[in-house]
Amino acid sequence: MAQGMTGKRIFLYDTTLRDGAQTQGVTFTVGDKLKVARMLDSLGVDYVEGGWPGANPTDDQFFGEKRPRLSRSKLCAFGMTRRAGRSAANDPGLRALFDVRPDVVTLVGKSSARQAEGALGVTRSENLDMIRESIAEAKRHVPEVMFDAEHFFDAFKADPDYALACLEAALGGGADWLVLCDTNGGTLPFEIEEIVGRVRERFPEARLGIHAHNDTGNAIANSLAAVRAGCTQIQGTLNGLGERCGNADLVALIPTLVFKMGLDVGIPPENIRHLTHLSRTFDELLNRVPNRHAPYVGASAFAHKGGLHASAVLKDPSFYEHIDPDLVGNSRDILVSDQAGRSNLLRRFEEMGIHLDIDEYQTRRILDLVKTREAQGFSYDGASASFELLVRRELGQVPDYFDVVRFRVINERRYNARGELVHVSEATLKVRIGTREFHEVADGDGPVNAIDRALRKALVEVYPVLADMRLVDYKVRILTPERGTAAVIRVMIESEDSQGRLWQTVGVSENIIVASYNALHDAITWKLLAEGAQAPDGR
Amino acid sequence: MAQGMTGKRIFLYDTTLRDGAQTQGVTFTVGDKLKVARMLDSLGVDYVEGGWPGANPTDDQFFGEKRPRLSRSKLCAFGMTRRAGRSAANDPGLRALFDVRPDVVTLVGKSSARQAEGALGVTRSENLDMIRESIAEAKRHVPEVMFDAEHFFDAFKADPDYALACLEAALGGGADWLVLCDTNGGTLPFEIEEIVGRVRERFPEARLGIHAHNDTGNAIANSLAAVRAGCTQIQGTLNGLGERCGNADLVALIPTLVFKMGLDVGIPPENIRHLTHLSRTFDELLNRVPNRHAPYVGASAFAHKGGLHASAVLKDPSFYEHIDPDLVGNSRDILVSDQAGRSNLLRRFEEMGIHLDIDEYQTRRILDLVKTREAQGFSYDGASASFELLVRRELGQVPDYFDVVRFRVINERRYNARGELVHVSEATLKVRIGTREFHEVADGDGPVNAIDRALRKALVEVYPVLADMRLVDYKVRILTPERGTAAVIRVMIESEDSQGRLWQTVGVSENIIVASYNALHDAITWKLLAEGAQAPDGR
Repeated sequence: MAQGMTGKRIFLYDTTLRDGAQTQGVTFTVGDKLKVARMLDSLGVDYVEGGWPGANPTDDQFFGEKRPRLSRSKLCAFGMTRRAGRSAANDPGLRALFDVRPDVVTLVGKSSARQAEGALGVTRSENLDMIRESIAEAKRHVPEVMFDAEHFFDAFKADPDYALACLEAALGGGADWLVLCDTNGGTLPFEIEEIVGRVRERFPEARLGIHAHNDTGNAIANSLAAVRAGCTQIQGTLNGLGERCGNADLVALIPTLVFKMGLDVGIPPENIRHLTHLSRTFDELLNRVPNRHAPYVGASAFAHKGGLHASAVLKDPSFYEHIDPDLVGNSRDILVSDQAGRSNLLRRFEEMGIHLDIDEYQTRRILDLVKTREAQGFSYDGASASFELLVRRELGQVPDYFDVVRFRVINERRYNARGELVHVSEATLKVRIGTREFHEVADGDGPVNAIDRALRKALVEVYPVLADMRLVDYKVRILTPERGTAAVIRVMIESEDSQGRLWQTVGVSENIIVASYNALHDAITWKLLAEGAQAPDGR
Repeated sequence: MAQGMTGKRIFLYDTTLRDGAQTQGVTFTVGDKLKVARMLDSLGVDYVEGGWPGANPTDDQFFGEKRPRLSRSKLCAFGMTRRAGRSAANDPGLRALFDVRPDVVTLVGKSSARQAEGALGVTRSENLDMIRESIAEAKRHVPEVMFDAEHFFDAFKADPDYALACLEAALGGGADWLVLCDTNGGTLPFEIEEIVGRVRERFPEARLGIHAHNDTGNAIANSLAAVRAGCTQIQGTLNGLGERCGNADLVALIPTLVFKMGLDVGIPPENIRHLTHLSRTFDELLNRVPNRHAPYVGASAFAHKGGLHASAVLKDPSFYEHIDPDLVGNSRDILVSDQAGRSNLLRRFEEMGIHLDIDEYQTRRILDLVKTREAQGFSYDGASASFELLVRRELGQVPDYFDVVRFRVINERRYNARGELVHVSEATLKVRIGTREFHEVADGDGPVNAIDRALRKALVEVYPVLADMRLVDYKVRILTPERGTAAVIRVMIESEDSQGRLWQTVGVSENIIVASYNALHDAITWKLLAEGAQAPDGR
């Protein structure tokens, strides 16, 4: 239905390292920036905006001595049109951009008289001069120059003639691209389509880009609407990073552009297969929990919880999937929950490489076991590692790696000798590993941390691979609130290791310490199993 | 630019409790469902879909003995068209829906021959009979009946005649609404607009709804496109909850529909001012971290990190904001004036039912305090009792009811004399109440329960009203996952008493025991304050 657009080339411009760096809570080091630039280059986006040379030391290093060598992507430097009352040739801000010799310079300027007058304090006509002269100066130094028309859509709504005059000034200066920015993010898709159409009519030969923000949840749709109306460049970020509600998410846009609209974004299908991995690796880099519900690449994007859906997907995945998850490197995840039927379980076993046709009896036993455990409060929806252990234990595939004979945790809150309120958590435990027995003690920031540390003290000696794992999430939920603090407690733990494995385990008990310990026990056991560790006595 | 649509009535249909319940990791209790239904009713959405009567015990209780009394919203029961080879009048699934006497029944049916044949195993013509007869039967029992046309857009692309025939069958049965479902979530906005237009042409008098999923990140845009093409009902969920990538997010849609498109969704502006609070409270209920970057209601939605942006916003907020955050109850993170800070605070009081008048000086001190505490990890959206205590302590209105001088909790896991694995939690504590000192010990099902019991042993003697309170919910969240088990931990406790009071408190610490103790301390203090209890020494 993308009439007449099939095969059309759309250029991708990534601004993760510049606009994405405006995200609250995100601070890129130079090392982070290099990693991201290389990720983008190996994915194959056309343009990588590295930052604003001259604005801060990180960006100076990135464009200077640390500069990444990119094989496919052009490296873009971002900056502003010249200051008022200065010639472009003598503007130190512009000079800083040219000095780093980027492949592309992208200059942002006002496209609204109200903004020029109100925020910059310059007249309408001086603003036009600033745009034209700055672009012209950039063209004298750099092969490709883009004009980012800030606030373009709001400006067009208020005063279309002036907004178009700003674009004309940029074209007059020799801009290779006019990028229409929805800076405040409040424009809706139908408005984008209409306004881009008007720009297209006025400048039929110009190359147009779109820069959308997600303040109404429409950054993706706005980018698509702009492409349909004639834009051939999309600016966006990895995972929709960006100030306020974020920029257009390139990770979600790429599969739609390629697989649904038949467009050519210059990225080969085999690279799109790495999108899921790329998206999660990027979150890891930022220490963010990946969004399970992200389009295409989220862990839940191809999860089927309802029994009816799950059984239909087993008949034909396209019944409840809009695309083959394999195309984006994601995988189908059929959930095990109280709604799940036997077909769910069979599918899940299959995914774990367990051949159930060997023993129907075991299938039934596992089914019963899952039911019993779920009635006790276990939930395997978000804890597939514990589920795998449950199954493999039933099949006799999990060695006895270690046995905690006993543990004790003491938490104390008291005033110390100086009259200060102090908290102490101390765990002691006795662990048997094969024929050896370890007696360890450790303190921690809380009881679970103390147990974790005491347990690792003992285990790492025998299983050095455990040094590499860490807890990344810890959630607790009460299950029978009518009993107050005495209720059953469910703990979910998420762990990861340096190989990018991410696994979830669950523990249930009336005692939060015991529930936490159980989830921790599963987390460690799963890691040992995944590493193919051998129990010392060969069991 | 919403040509000719201004003032048009668009109906909102919330399916958080049915489709949203399919979200990975989400399991609603009956209590959760009641809370959500009341939240939606007080917001003022037109339809609240409560679940699927007959499908599981939770939904049966919700529609049965626990049924919420709603003042504005109609309560909808969801179900499926009759089974093949059975008359609608004799279908136990349909009967279960009518038996609970909902205001509305919504029946889902296939609108694709491929799905009917492949997933249900019925012929094209039997599927049409199933739709028509089921709707007709429902109309005999329930005043308003909707037809959810599953997979409608995919079905239309494959075979428009059959898809339309399914809608015709529903209309023939007397359906009040035809809801066009993008079940797999893969349809793009321009396709939605075109296909809804075709349906509109064919059935100009029918009332149409849209049910969109977010698998391409376009659920919001798809809903807007459908409205522009003639749909007058939008189905969605709070915060975009839902299977896979979620449903259309009503929280993001409402302000766009009302403030940007000038439509009437039946929700008065004063209720839209509670959207931010509602969205965050809903996340707290689910123990989910609110999305900072959510459109309109996210904590970062009106945050300005860039120095240039921030200073322009100080000149005129509309320079970098697409809407006034106050309209949705959110706030700018750069407080433009003390006046704005004070009105923010007063609104928070109002939302939390706190009746207090404060002067400028107190406002500034409380704002600073809240900022500091929130930076430490406190969150008051789901803990209004702790917020009230914070404010009243600052105003000197909270007596020193008791002082826990020290406590110690021991948790032990070991084998007893009979070789059974046992868990023991024992708390000892010293409490000062006025001039008296109590030294108590108690065990419990876990450390928090043990502390709670030891503390009450001491307190109840002086404050008998405390015998009447109990804990009903207990939630824990990790706040700095990059530090693993050593992270900061936030505990939220919900308590209730026999008078039906329900209050929430929060505690934050690196130590889960201490965080729990702090939340417990607030819970007890709030109860004493609410009862007007006097501290023994008259302080």
